[in-house]
Amino acid sequence: MIKTAIIGGSGYTGLELLRILALHDKAEVVAVTSRRYAGKGVAAVFPSLAGHYDKLSFTGPKALDTTGAELFFCCLPHGTSMQTVPALLKAGKKVIDLSADYRIKDAVTYEKWYHPHSSKELIAEAAYGLPEVFGRAAIKDANLIANPGCYPTGAALALAPLVKAELIDTSSIIIDSKSGVSGAGRSASIATSYMEIAEGFKAYKVGEHRHTPEIDQTLSALAGCEVSVTFTPHLLPLKRGILSTVYADMKDAETHTTESLTEIFKGSYEGEAFIRICAEGVLPNLSEVAGTNNCAIGLKLDRATGRVVVISAIDNLVKGASGAAVQNMNIACGLDETTGLISIPL
Amino acid sequence: MIKTAIIGGSGYTGLELLRILALHDKAEVVAVTSRRYAGKGVAAVFPSLAGHYDKLSFTGPKALDTTGAELFFCCLPHGTSMQTVPALLKAGKKVIDLSADYRIKDAVTYEKWYHPHSSKELIAEAAYGLPEVFGRAAIKDANLIANPGCYPTGAALALAPLVKAELIDTSSIIIDSKSGVSGAGRSASIATSYMEIAEGFKAYKVGEHRHTPEIDQTLSALAGCEVSVTFTPHLLPLKRGILSTVYADMKDAETHTTESLTEIFKGSYEGEAFIRICAEGVLPNLSEVAGTNNCAIGLKLDRATGRVVVISAIDNLVKGASGAAVQNMNIACGLDETTGLISIPL
Amino acid sequence: MIKTAIIGGSGYTGLELLRILALHDKAEVVAVTSRRYAGKGVAAVFPSLAGHYDKLSFTGPKALDTTGAELFFCCLPHGTSMQTVPALLKAGKKVIDLSADYRIKDAVTYEKWYHPHSSKELIAEAAYGLPEVFGRAAIKDANLIANPGCYPTGAALALAPLVKAELIDTSSIIIDSKSGVSGAGRSASIATSYMEIAEGFKAYKVGEHRHTPEIDQTLSALAGCEVSVTFTPHLLPLKRGILSTVYADMKDAETHTTESLTEIFKGSYEGEAFIRICAEGVLPNLSEVAGTNNCAIGLKLDRATGRVVVISAIDNLVKGASGAAVQNMNIACGLDETTGLISIPL
Amino acid sequence: MIKTAIIGGSGYTGLELLRILALHDKAEVVAVTSRRYAGKGVAAVFPSLAGHYDKLSFTGPKALDTTGAELFFCCLPHGTSMQTVPALLKAGKKVIDLSADYRIKDAVTYEKWYHPHSSKELIAEAAYGLPEVFGRAAIKDANLIANPGCYPTGAALALAPLVKAELIDTSSIIIDSKSGVSGAGRSASIATSYMEIAEGFKAYKVGEHRHTPEIDQTLSALAGCEVSVTFTPHLLPLKRGILSTVYADMKDAETHTTESLTEIFKGSYEGEAFIRICAEGVLPNLSEVAGTNNCAIGLKLDRATGRVVVISAIDNLVKGASGAAVQNMNIACGLDETTGLISIPL
Repeated sequence: MIKTAIIGGSGYTGLELLRILALHDKAEVVAVTSRRYAGKGVAAVFPSLAGHYDKLSFTGPKALDTTGAELFFCCLPHGTSMQTVPALLKAGKKVIDLSADYRIKDAVTYEKWYHPHSSKELIAEAAYGLPEVFGRAAIKDANLIANPGCYPTGAALALAPLVKAELIDTSSIIIDSKSGVSGAGRSASIATSYMEIAEGFKAYKVGEHRHTPEIDQTLSALAGCEVSVTFTPHLLPLKRGILSTVYADMKDAETHTTESLTEIFKGSYEGEAFIRICAEGVLPNLSEVAGTNNCAIGLKLDRATGRVVVISAIDNLVKGASGAAVQNMNIACGLDETTGLISIPL
Repeated sequence: MIKTAIIGGSGYTGLELLRILALHDKAEVVAVTSRRYAGKGVAAVFPSLAGHYDKLSFTGPKALDTTGAELFFCCLPHGTSMQTVPALLKAGKKVIDLSADYRIKDAVTYEKWYHPHSSKELIAEAAYGLPEVFGRAAIKDANLIANPGCYPTGAALALAPLVKAELIDTSSIIIDSKSGVSGAGRSASIATSYMEIAEGFKAYKVGEHRHTPEIDQTLSALAGCEVSVTFTPHLLPLKRGILSTVYADMKDAETHTTESLTEIFKGSYEGEAFIRICAEGVLPNLSEVAGTNNCAIGLKLDRATGRVVVISAIDNLVKGASGAAVQNMNIACGLDETTGLISIPL
Repeated sequence: MIKTAIIGGSGYTGLELLRILALHDKAEVVAVTSRRYAGKGVAAVFPSLAGHYDKLSFTGPKALDTTGAELFFCCLPHGTSMQTVPALLKAGKKVIDLSADYRIKDAVTYEKWYHPHSSKELIAEAAYGLPEVFGRAAIKDANLIANPGCYPTGAALALAPLVKAELIDTSSIIIDSKSGVSGAGRSASIATSYMEIAEGFKAYKVGEHRHTPEIDQTLSALAGCEVSVTFTPHLLPLKRGILSTVYADMKDAETHTTESLTEIFKGSYEGEAFIRICAEGVLPNLSEVAGTNNCAIGLKLDRATGRVVVISAIDNLVKGASGAAVQNMNIACGLDETTGLISIPL
Repeated sequence: MIKTAIIGGSGYTGLELLRILALHDKAEVVAVTSRRYAGKGVAAVFPSLAGHYDKLSFTGPKALDTTGAELFFCCLPHGTSMQTVPALLKAGKKVIDLSADYRIKDAVTYEKWYHPHSSKELIAEAAYGLPEVFGRAAIKDANLIANPGCYPTGAALALAPLVKAELIDTSSIIIDSKSGVSGAGRSASIATSYMEIAEGFKAYKVGEHRHTPEIDQTLSALAGCEVSVTFTPHLLPLKRGILSTVYADMKDAETHTTESLTEIFKGSYEGEAFIRICAEGVLPNLSEVAGTNNCAIGLKLDRATGRVVVISAIDNLVKGASGAAVQNMNIACGLDETTGLISIPL
């Protein structure tokens, strides 16, 4: 059993790691920290975990040294993570960081969108943990894995086959994403109250969401040139999931069909356990991926305008965060990549 | 009091007309037809109307002649409406048709997207009832008013100021719309059951929704040239509302700002009682328009890509259907345009 | 126009008063206070009010003296209200208090369930504003009206006809109530977040909710003897409404039928504009009263056990709070009782 | 691997069996029938099952003989089940019947609440599959297991410890239950549409729901005397779960406390894998059992009235139907009772 610890485990990504790892055959959680809940039993804080972790309590940050954990999931906020990760690496631990702190390769860009970076030297050695797009090699060797953001995961999976095959005009990309409420994090706020969310829907941070540079970075790496997307996030009245509707102008629309593009996607993701390409004429529903580590993708070629519309659906807390983190752990630790990650939505 | 009748009143647009007209000072409903509910009391079918219409029952289609109604709201499905409207016009009645049958000016296009048209000669005389875009003159004079579709209303209101002022490349328009469940109509169906809708979200009919030619027709009329948009509708887990996120490439992005574009929208809709342009930095939420005849519009210029993102929010059953129908009635009958249409969302 | 002020207007009851009074023909809001929002425009805080109150801003508590308001709605929390009301009364203002501070006639009971009372001398002169149960006389004469609690309103309206007619064993009363989330108030809290509420349901404060003594007081007054109920509140995953399912043993079950009891209820509430007794076999749905000042009541005699089951449905923010407050204002000011309170649910 | 077949697999209980059995280590589904979907792939009908059952298609009822299944889950409607079960038993198959057809031991009672019974002789040999209340012996030996109804499961688990220990007056039992929409079954209907359900709540079939005699039968068996309860079901705006709030008069209220009663419940269900008794002061939330085979129970002694309030929470589709069916299969086939049934709610 791999001994793992979760740092900053009081939010949704921490809860989700606890949920997934409770039924993981090859890994266990030996410690979970939280300033807010230090001293409280895990199941007392999260009743859905009753019957699991009955002997595990939250600890304060200090008490970590003696846990014997070899792999650390870091669920701290952006900016806080970079204050904790260096010491863990120095102590010889593997770290999977769910914050944005080691995702952006260019420190100047990071600092423009986030804030000053206190351990820039580690950015280069961090592996970006999106195996379906960038492969497994870097992840296997890394001590520090930067777990991708939720929106960037959905966007990259929808676009990678098109960009890799040079089928689209990369200056034309528009990403219209819709996220469930869990993406806003677990904190007391009127903005995420039932009263504000139910029967409501809105866009937010249009053209200025911090995930934009991460999306640009991935697509630029695949395209071999600078890519700038238009990215519009929206807030859905549901708990889990990001559905991204992606638009791009085809370079040679007339030489393609919805069917031929579907085949290109199937080929591009062949053998990937967590990617499901919908049959032609079928489009994914967020309810089909909720609670799973799957990404479902459907697409349509709009003949009248020469545009392709690709739609990807993920669970933002699973494939967009904690499921991907466990998948990265599985890869980094030499386990079967799907261990603990096979589930069926309700 | 204007005596009105509702034909095909068992669906959501019929119910919504009954709701609005119950508190309208200058109009009353003297008849409402429904094959399904013929003979039943209105409040027995729709308990939310209890206390109003206590003496009104649904009648079968035949019983209309003697009602004395002078204005007819036709809430029949596409194709059925064209079988009913000609006789009403011949009998000297005013008709506001909520179906698509008289919206598309080009009968060939109508027949391509819908089905054979049996009263093409009436299409030309129908006024398209979108006063904020095309003015009131035609509506005032018309005996037949084609009430606009719900998606086309939201899209047109978001784009009209930009197209009229020739600010955007009209070949670049993408409309990503998200509609509440009521848009699917009131019929027994697993697809619109709570189990399928709640905590779910999906796109449908990508690139092939029947509202596309209606949107194209409006924008082409404003642009003075052929416009073809990419239109993607989605189904939201909420009851009421369409939020349309509209993308277009600016012709001279660098000469504009979000603020200057906001001013152009305010100018374009000056004096319009039902259009609310959000202050810069504010975006509309569907919950703010639910149950009202308002359209709220927010926008953002995406500097990095030179695109403008405009977001419009309407209630699909009110401004997107029955509210607009009452607004058109008010105009056609010489009433204050806002009569019966001032309300505040919960 | 009656000039009114709202004290503590940043919560749901304040918002609801603003919503109702915006369309009230005979009253206007000239001031609204809020520590949190002092200086902000009303529509900037509550976008649903855009187009109304465009010149009204929240003020701090101090700035009230000069507003010229003659009637004050006090929407402060329990305990805070009693610190504000005495000065208003002394200044000759009418006060409708939406807190619990002047509802409980017995100060000892109040202090047992709430906390020390600082103006006990005013309790006796406060009129309890439940006109359908206790009539209008006291309300008309009062300068201080204690607006009833939401649960007590639903419970009292369901039970009053049975208790008045001495049809039930008052020691057998069980009230199983289910409330929408707005009942928990408008404050930042994980407990009322969409993530906690949606797809969830639970009971809370079983046997110890503070509304219990208020319910007991009303039923005891009607019964002429001490009544103690079992009261269980639950939290529904919806915004508005309280549905109370009330159980009681009939004294002479065999002499009654569901039909005869329905007639007794109709008789008891004859002429009441806001009470709707469902036909036999019909039960109320919360969606039918949402946004209205109505109370819908259905009932059933359970032959097998000799128990009567009465179900009442109200909107907790309207008939259970701000609608009742406006109704009390109408009565106290000699207006038609329904002014500003006629609406139809969506 | 135990070969199983599902008869009538197009509804929610069938889908739920498919979901659970897909990840069951010791059983597999070799056939699933449905008139409606005959010939269609399982994952084509239920996209949430994509990646599982990729070779399994629905068959018509006739094609069952050759499947080699040894155990049949019968998910047919009441009345239809009794036409299918006898032949399966005659063919030497084990049958777990999810309908009501073999639950009611007294055929006269069955026929009073349902309709004529065509295989009364089999009723006596059917084991009622509620192991936590009636033990495992009968289930182990049975060829026909009558799977309990959803409401009766929640009610029985809440009341069994009290009735067995003779702590309550059994003539005083009131069961106020609230069920999610899935309890209404998977059929096209306006009544279960999102538009009707969301933001709504109501009681239905008060005093006349068919599960009443099944509840009475269980409690009578435990009490050793005739028990008649008052049972009120309600329809919640959520997908899964039944929360039952149960009221009963204590025989000697003053000799008990909430704490002592909690201990009695813990003792009564000691060793039960699927029953969780909440700590004193804690009450269950439906969201904590959704998707699981667990029943969570909390309780409170209401000192003022001498009543006990017990609240049980189950997932109606799992512990209330298909999970219990798999649990019964595990018992009947000599497997560990929890096989395939350990899961954590989202």
